[in-house]
Amino acid sequence: MSDRFFPFLTKPVPYEGPDSDNPMAFKWYDAKRKIAGKTMEQHLRFAVCYWHTFKGTGADPFGGPAHERPWNAASDPLQRARDTMDAAFEFFRKLGVPFWCFHDRDIAPEGATVSESNANLEALVQHAKKLQKETGVRLLWGTANLFSHPRYAHGAATSPDPLVFAHACAQVRRALDATVELGGTGYVFWGGREGYSMLYNTDMKQEADQFARFLFMAHEYAQKIGFKGRFFIEPKPKEPSTHQYDYDAATVLGFLSRYNIDFVDLNIENNHATLAGHSFAHELMVASQAGRLGSLDINRGNPLLGWDTDQFPTVLEDAVWAMHIILDQGGLKYGGLNFDAKVRRGSFDLEDLFYAHIGAMDTFARALIIADRMRKDGLRAKWLAERYAGWKKDFGSKVLKGQVTLEEAELYAIKEGEPKRRSGREELFENIVNQYLYDRGLR
Amino acid sequence: MSDRFFPFLTKPVPYEGPDSDNPMAFKWYDAKRKIAGKTMEQHLRFAVCYWHTFKGTGADPFGGPAHERPWNAASDPLQRARDTMDAAFEFFRKLGVPFWCFHDRDIAPEGATVSESNANLEALVQHAKKLQKETGVRLLWGTANLFSHPRYAHGAATSPDPLVFAHACAQVRRALDATVELGGTGYVFWGGREGYSMLYNTDMKQEADQFARFLFMAHEYAQKIGFKGRFFIEPKPKEPSTHQYDYDAATVLGFLSRYNIDFVDLNIENNHATLAGHSFAHELMVASQAGRLGSLDINRGNPLLGWDTDQFPTVLEDAVWAMHIILDQGGLKYGGLNFDAKVRRGSFDLEDLFYAHIGAMDTFARALIIADRMRKDGLRAKWLAERYAGWKKDFGSKVLKGQVTLEEAELYAIKEGEPKRRSGREELFENIVNQYLYDRGLR
Amino acid sequence: MSDRFFPFLTKPVPYEGPDSDNPMAFKWYDAKRKIAGKTMEQHLRFAVCYWHTFKGTGADPFGGPAHERPWNAASDPLQRARDTMDAAFEFFRKLGVPFWCFHDRDIAPEGATVSESNANLEALVQHAKKLQKETGVRLLWGTANLFSHPRYAHGAATSPDPLVFAHACAQVRRALDATVELGGTGYVFWGGREGYSMLYNTDMKQEADQFARFLFMAHEYAQKIGFKGRFFIEPKPKEPSTHQYDYDAATVLGFLSRYNIDFVDLNIENNHATLAGHSFAHELMVASQAGRLGSLDINRGNPLLGWDTDQFPTVLEDAVWAMHIILDQGGLKYGGLNFDAKVRRGSFDLEDLFYAHIGAMDTFARALIIADRMRKDGLRAKWLAERYAGWKKDFGSKVLKGQVTLEEAELYAIKEGEPKRRSGREELFENIVNQYLYDRGLR
Amino acid sequence: MSDRFFPFLTKPVPYEGPDSDNPMAFKWYDAKRKIAGKTMEQHLRFAVCYWHTFKGTGADPFGGPAHERPWNAASDPLQRARDTMDAAFEFFRKLGVPFWCFHDRDIAPEGATVSESNANLEALVQHAKKLQKETGVRLLWGTANLFSHPRYAHGAATSPDPLVFAHACAQVRRALDATVELGGTGYVFWGGREGYSMLYNTDMKQEADQFARFLFMAHEYAQKIGFKGRFFIEPKPKEPSTHQYDYDAATVLGFLSRYNIDFVDLNIENNHATLAGHSFAHELMVASQAGRLGSLDINRGNPLLGWDTDQFPTVLEDAVWAMHIILDQGGLKYGGLNFDAKVRRGSFDLEDLFYAHIGAMDTFARALIIADRMRKDGLRAKWLAERYAGWKKDFGSKVLKGQVTLEEAELYAIKEGEPKRRSGREELFENIVNQYLYDRGLR
Repeated sequence: MSDRFFPFLTKPVPYEGPDSDNPMAFKWYDAKRKIAGKTMEQHLRFAVCYWHTFKGTGADPFGGPAHERPWNAASDPLQRARDTMDAAFEFFRKLGVPFWCFHDRDIAPEGATVSESNANLEALVQHAKKLQKETGVRLLWGTANLFSHPRYAHGAATSPDPLVFAHACAQVRRALDATVELGGTGYVFWGGREGYSMLYNTDMKQEADQFARFLFMAHEYAQKIGFKGRFFIEPKPKEPSTHQYDYDAATVLGFLSRYNIDFVDLNIENNHATLAGHSFAHELMVASQAGRLGSLDINRGNPLLGWDTDQFPTVLEDAVWAMHIILDQGGLKYGGLNFDAKVRRGSFDLEDLFYAHIGAMDTFARALIIADRMRKDGLRAKWLAERYAGWKKDFGSKVLKGQVTLEEAELYAIKEGEPKRRSGREELFENIVNQYLYDRGLR
Repeated sequence: MSDRFFPFLTKPVPYEGPDSDNPMAFKWYDAKRKIAGKTMEQHLRFAVCYWHTFKGTGADPFGGPAHERPWNAASDPLQRARDTMDAAFEFFRKLGVPFWCFHDRDIAPEGATVSESNANLEALVQHAKKLQKETGVRLLWGTANLFSHPRYAHGAATSPDPLVFAHACAQVRRALDATVELGGTGYVFWGGREGYSMLYNTDMKQEADQFARFLFMAHEYAQKIGFKGRFFIEPKPKEPSTHQYDYDAATVLGFLSRYNIDFVDLNIENNHATLAGHSFAHELMVASQAGRLGSLDINRGNPLLGWDTDQFPTVLEDAVWAMHIILDQGGLKYGGLNFDAKVRRGSFDLEDLFYAHIGAMDTFARALIIADRMRKDGLRAKWLAERYAGWKKDFGSKVLKGQVTLEEAELYAIKEGEPKRRSGREELFENIVNQYLYDRGLR
Repeated sequence: MSDRFFPFLTKPVPYEGPDSDNPMAFKWYDAKRKIAGKTMEQHLRFAVCYWHTFKGTGADPFGGPAHERPWNAASDPLQRARDTMDAAFEFFRKLGVPFWCFHDRDIAPEGATVSESNANLEALVQHAKKLQKETGVRLLWGTANLFSHPRYAHGAATSPDPLVFAHACAQVRRALDATVELGGTGYVFWGGREGYSMLYNTDMKQEADQFARFLFMAHEYAQKIGFKGRFFIEPKPKEPSTHQYDYDAATVLGFLSRYNIDFVDLNIENNHATLAGHSFAHELMVASQAGRLGSLDINRGNPLLGWDTDQFPTVLEDAVWAMHIILDQGGLKYGGLNFDAKVRRGSFDLEDLFYAHIGAMDTFARALIIADRMRKDGLRAKWLAERYAGWKKDFGSKVLKGQVTLEEAELYAIKEGEPKRRSGREELFENIVNQYLYDRGLR
Repeated sequence: MSDRFFPFLTKPVPYEGPDSDNPMAFKWYDAKRKIAGKTMEQHLRFAVCYWHTFKGTGADPFGGPAHERPWNAASDPLQRARDTMDAAFEFFRKLGVPFWCFHDRDIAPEGATVSESNANLEALVQHAKKLQKETGVRLLWGTANLFSHPRYAHGAATSPDPLVFAHACAQVRRALDATVELGGTGYVFWGGREGYSMLYNTDMKQEADQFARFLFMAHEYAQKIGFKGRFFIEPKPKEPSTHQYDYDAATVLGFLSRYNIDFVDLNIENNHATLAGHSFAHELMVASQAGRLGSLDINRGNPLLGWDTDQFPTVLEDAVWAMHIILDQGGLKYGGLNFDAKVRRGSFDLEDLFYAHIGAMDTFARALIIADRMRKDGLRAKWLAERYAGWKKDFGSKVLKGQVTLEEAELYAIKEGEPKRRSGREELFENIVNQYLYDRGLR
């Protein structure tokens, strides 16, 4: 493969270990290193997102594009799309990630009509297919951008206008085709405009019905074309909408339960978790304990800011709990770890794209080692087993089996008297977790 | 009845109309005035909460009790409890509210043993029964305080210790007995400690199972003793816990759906809504559209503060949407409007208790008139009908009936082309709503 | 003047009074109505902002331009700029506002070089001058956009690169020239990128020194060219930066005091106030009590959202306190009420621009009437006089004069004993304020 | 000394190094280990706070005391106070900290009169003096509790009632006496009620004048009694007040500058920083760069919660930047690191007090080692020197000297043309900092 877009790096980013001072080397991510029976690569299933890394411009609400990219030079939109894709696969290969993710409108420009848009997409899908074959990089999941076009200002599947709904269907149909064609094992629904800007003019019940219908239609179609993967809904509480229906994991699980939808799992994002007032670990746990944790967007936010900053993940503790929960559930079969992060507006250089991904990968690689060690030592398992021991026997187990009435419980309370006050040991557990984060046999 | 505790007010608070300057008179609340076929009193179903109004002390995390109340003078706890209840009913009568609400430990002191606590409660319930009869004031709902005692530090129904669970059962049993004895039509579960302080030492799934079991046990018992009302869960996202399981309306509805619990409705609180990042109207709408809006706590928070300030409701727009939603669903059969608000720490005087309730009642009375007028003019109904008209016919209605595939939708999009961009008219609607708030035929 | 851009409105928006149902009429804003000795127009000094109203597109971080404006049709950038300005003045005239505000890059496109940018600006300034003369609409204040161009990614006056600083100087010089040429009485500094994205690579002290120097240089130049108005700094805590130096009113006042800058007042924005955790009234009061409240941006935010929503002001109470504080300080000599608000993404139509401004103007007109009435009744003045009476006499006044030592104060405390607990009467005052908001002799 | 209160620990907590599994041992804090020329003990100057650690009960707004402490057994308040102090010094000695901090009402109960309160305080101060002598533990700083008593509901120094002000003076006088008597080098003002609950009834300017006067009076008295230390103001934005005047570091610095107060430095708290929307590092940097960083409260909050959780510090990165800034300014001469943290409500045991402090001390000890290493490698110094190099020469340095006009700056911009876009390297710097946090030669 060529070095056309990233000539400063002629070989893939090497693993050099924690003592290296080379900013273009991994300190912890060693793709083939085995942890708990699988390689790091197999556990982590990293996927580069196309939108931020190749279509991102550093723009924000107070300034336009700031990042000049060599793949944007061509004046013809389709050529620009092909150049961008060439750059992307050069990047994937040099970074050494196994997967990528895309929206339909990232990889191919919107046309003047649905048919023209479809044709553009089809052309780029074929180009991607060729590049996948050449590089061995695979598609993790695909999705359709149902929020950028003005027609979606009032929602896509939840639009008050059925014709807008139909356009959303058209996009999803083709994005599903593309996902299947490229071998993706997931398909994501992020409903950026599926919510409301104002409650006065909104019928939430009507819109929820529409969204459920939309999912059923997409599912039927996916079955028909032989999609073997899973659907994922990605919760986010707000932004751009004032309120988004897929607020958080619990809200989405409630929706799925109410509409009897069993073919959708969750794609949990760290930044969206904190915007909803939850920790990343909380959202992952909620999804995982419901058997619905399908995939992760690992970008972080800044908890002091109220919008999506989409920063690369560099907070070790977040990553450790993520990997702990993933290992607990036996891994991610259909999903993986999508970066979904963008370099800052002032990070003008192409090198910054590498630094950013390297830091994120090292953070999660280190986290994998730590989480594995914590699990081998049975840390959390032991804490929980001791703490909830009473529920495994006698009165506790009878309660859970439905064999105790309220009156019987009262009699038990009278007989046993005041419970002993047992410390929850939060301060101690924080200390022990810190020992694992920093000191426990990492090398 | 006596004037023992509020001698400065020898007659009930009168209605004097909007031009009155008398701080001890209603400007809008006119109990017997008819609106939409019922009296204001019947619509609003105001209930004074016992805990804040009679047990509140002005204490906060940085200072102890600041409010000296004459009903706290007796040294014997049971006498103090009876005096407090006498004061409460004198207050109810003078304020002119039809309902009150209580926690078990508000009205009767905790004893050294379960049996002693039960006896204390029973004594005060009989006292309440007598006072209800004398005054005509009725119980709206009862509840048990499962968060103040240290035994509940790690949760009540969700405690890791089954014996703590048993104590919670004991309290709920007796609180249900009391509710039935006093004719209450609702019973509330607010899970202040049903959540976690730290995720490391918490098994959320286990705790959710416990909580569901707890509800079933309470329900079976309530059926047995002839309770004809409804159970209500009151969502709150956090405080005192780091995370509370009954986070918001959507989370609770999801939980109820997952555990197939059909005997619980929601008690929505304004302050809890904003702590969860939602508007009051949003939470009310979510609950109402699910057919589960049972009752309201109408206290407001300060959206710039991150804790429960429990202020009396004085924001008209919040109240208008609340009344609109209540009228839309045909009223509150089992619940009502509970103030759940406390006077500020610096509001030392007994008069302040009256001012606070009067302001809240006037706010909601005014809101009722406005909401009724808005509904009669068909304001929101018309906006929604026009906006969603496309879903009532042709393609839209076929989609909702499940008669359209993804491919057919795409064909429709291709045929119809780009949708017309229709303004959502948010700015105009805000103006019109403001006209109703201030100017539309109030007198 | 022509009806080229807003043909649906052939005459200025009329005043029709509160009973009107005409969405294109004022209900409260009656420009020539006298309140407290001046006309509404003179009190309110409304200014339409050029950027949102004419350059706004409905774009947000998740979608590009959505608003199609007839003034954007021309392919030549300078022609487009002239058309836009024609549309703006047609709008000003039809809306009936006395003032407008601009950034340099709003009214004229950035050129390839500084000189070209300057020439573009100069051309449009002359066009504006002509239109001002034709319409009688005046400039309230000007400013330079020092945040949109990529060169300002790391700050403008606070950039680590002195050449970027120089470019900022170049822009401010010409924006000051334009302001003077057009008769503006204010010049605003909003430091969108004057802050940091990351503390690791930032020297806050160095950057503060740069910013102070920048202000002195601008001030010297403004004196030289005969500017008779005032400089305003507009506080904002964050967004786009992680932290902005002009965080809030208190922070800016501290900066001005530390650097002995006496030629800068404050431009307080409602939305920025709430992003900083303050109420609008708080920020206005802080600025006004320091004698530095110069101008207002009256757009509101949504306190449940963590970013600048820049909505049109429709919350009456905010407006009432703003007008109260303005009346208290004897008006705004150099500044005025700038809308700084944008219509929602889904408000596609040109009519929406009118509805939005009409609603805002009515809100503040109504607020002016109410605030005047409150002041005439001496409401707040009386509350304060009574509450702080002790500080006007005896011990209190001696303390303030510096005539009491700590030991003497202790002796006074011992002699007088425990202070009486006086209620702050918050609940009552809320009720009385509500009476003024809704019922007090508005007509 | 005795083992009366903590008999489970008969010797001081030992240092055992990072590989130890002993929860009652330090992993990183090795008091006599030398770092950058001083011992860890000398650098860190840890102080245990009396209020949380010995007077804390686990109470919160939803539950009363939960922690049963053996030192609370005596029925006589003064005996209880002496027992508590004995327990405190036993704890200080066993934990191995050099300092402690107190409020007047922590160590001695409030009496029925000022004189009685003073006598109680004096008795306990003498007891403390004896214990200090026996143990070698010293006082870091003292303060007066001006927020818990109901008289302070509307503020202490900022109360509308001068008699309340006088009571505050009385307390501060005696707390200063106590601080001097016990050899404290600091005296802290935390104004929990110095703010407002409602703006309607508040005159902020009047209250600021009062507060300034209060500081001057306290300063004059301190000089008179020979206090050789420093005063510290501790910023906090809100809670219990709706708005507190000492909002954040910048606000306090502005206040000090406006009133020409040069005898007060800042005591910066991590939890208060985040409540104000700032990072801990930000607040420390603001104070330090103004030459006013005097002392630290190192307790952390939970950024997802909106109230003071006062948790023990366990987040390494916060601690590293704190130590970096302290080392940069040459240490803390008068102040130190006060824990100001409380164990969670469910941490019932006395052991939990030790675990909590050990974890905090290890976190800061580790942070000291890392910060020292970062500084030796010149990490941040180098980044800043490179980034701001332009300001040290030619045009940049002339600007800072005030030798460049706006026009000259424009000419420079024209001559030099468009600035080169230099990356801020945020992603890379985050990676490098992470290497230091985890991997750089700690052992």
